[in-house]
Amino acid sequence: MKKANKKVNAAIIIIGNEILSGRTQDINVSFLAKWLNDLGVIVGEVRIIEDKEEFIINTIKEVKNNFKYVFTTGGIGPTHDDITSKSIAKAFNLSCGYHKEAYGILEKYYKPGEFNKGRKKMAKIPDRAELIYNPSSGAPGFIVKNVFCLPGVPSILKSMVTGLKNKIIGGKKILSKTISVNTVESEIAKSLEDVQNKFKDIEIGSYPFFRMGKIGVSIVMRSTEKHQIDDCFKQIISFIQKKKIQITDRE
Amino acid sequence: MKKANKKVNAAIIIIGNEILSGRTQDINVSFLAKWLNDLGVIVGEVRIIEDKEEFIINTIKEVKNNFKYVFTTGGIGPTHDDITSKSIAKAFNLSCGYHKEAYGILEKYYKPGEFNKGRKKMAKIPDRAELIYNPSSGAPGFIVKNVFCLPGVPSILKSMVTGLKNKIIGGKKILSKTISVNTVESEIAKSLEDVQNKFKDIEIGSYPFFRMGKIGVSIVMRSTEKHQIDDCFKQIISFIQKKKIQITDRE
Repeated sequence: MKKANKKVNAAIIIIGNEILSGRTQDINVSFLAKWLNDLGVIVGEVRIIEDKEEFIINTIKEVKNNFKYVFTTGGIGPTHDDITSKSIAKAFNLSCGYHKEAYGILEKYYKPGEFNKGRKKMAKIPDRAELIYNPSSGAPGFIVKNVFCLPGVPSILKSMVTGLKNKIIGGKKILSKTISVNTVESEIAKSLEDVQNKFKDIEIGSYPFFRMGKIGVSIVMRSTEKHQIDDCFKQIISFIQKKKIQITDRE
Repeated sequence: MKKANKKVNAAIIIIGNEILSGRTQDINVSFLAKWLNDLGVIVGEVRIIEDKEEFIINTIKEVKNNFKYVFTTGGIGPTHDDITSKSIAKAFNLSCGYHKEAYGILEKYYKPGEFNKGRKKMAKIPDRAELIYNPSSGAPGFIVKNVFCLPGVPSILKSMVTGLKNKIIGGKKILSKTISVNTVESEIAKSLEDVQNKFKDIEIGSYPFFRMGKIGVSIVMRSTEKHQIDDCFKQIISFIQKKKIQITDRE
């Protein structure tokens, strides 16, 4: 029998030189990760890669076998640097001509005479791919096996993923609790390690922060098991209080 | 003879579950990428990985051979989830005991009696590693061969990299020019592709944006060759003007 609480994982592949050059700050990873967490899917790895065919193909070939789901962002627009569709097709040995449904959607979306070559390029999608509808700007994303291809523009990406919920079969929802305390990490490191050793199935992270001139540490517990998080939370609160450290926030 | 303008590349490895869970928005990639670009180093790939020893070791073993420089962020603090130092040591088959110089720095940094176990952990650094000094909070980063290990807290990371300039031997500085225009990508896709085909050594990117209710496209040219960028820029301006598209910004 399969373990009921088997972890379901995903990889996110950000395709785009604009992120690698530092020109554009990625915000899709954080959005997708939270959205996936809510569906019981843990993001196990993110890669940001150049928009070069060879890199996209090699990366997809590798991650599609190591993760239950793969999400790509970027490179499905109309310009010469948008090469995600043909690269994904090659990674799966599929052809990449006009996709009938996508072509129909785009033809309807544009006014007569405006469905030009650049726009038609967005209908070139791997053969037999399932479409991801785009309520913002017409051009669809697509799904090939376990790989979901989304655009890079965050507002459009957000509008498209809401329609994907029923395509994702997640595990138990990942729950988290955070305690923020007014101290430095090294004051709590030993006690925190003792708690971690007691709760092997809980991921306890310790993150120093500097906010408005004040330093502190956020202790984050993550697990699918609510009662375990609650127990762990109590033990952390207990040693924090014994040390007379101020708790500044709990969520 | 080696090509004078050989590209120098780097990979950035972000170590930390807090980024993968979406809880924390990474801003180190963008900062490091711009800083490296200025030194003539192109970031070829970024990976965000879990803070699990096996993943860190495997990732480092792979990227250290594929990139001239590797930068890691995160996992060098005093808590149980800070495992970068021992993982990097294992990736290079080095031992990871107290590093004499790091121990001395930390011992001096803390008041007598405050140099506790958690703080001592930060002096455990791979054998023979060169230190990266930390003007913000004492605890050093380190360099093993071509791998530079930095902390995850952005303000501390920034204060540490300024001392690294003379450790990086970059190629020619990567220059960029941007033209922002008041149109959609599909209106300029064909002309842009024609220009790209003429300038094979220039990376031309096209990035749609939505700002304050207005849509537009930023066309970004990147190359080490100033005169080529200037020529390319002129040809893009030329077709933009022929199409009577408004230019909203040039930089």
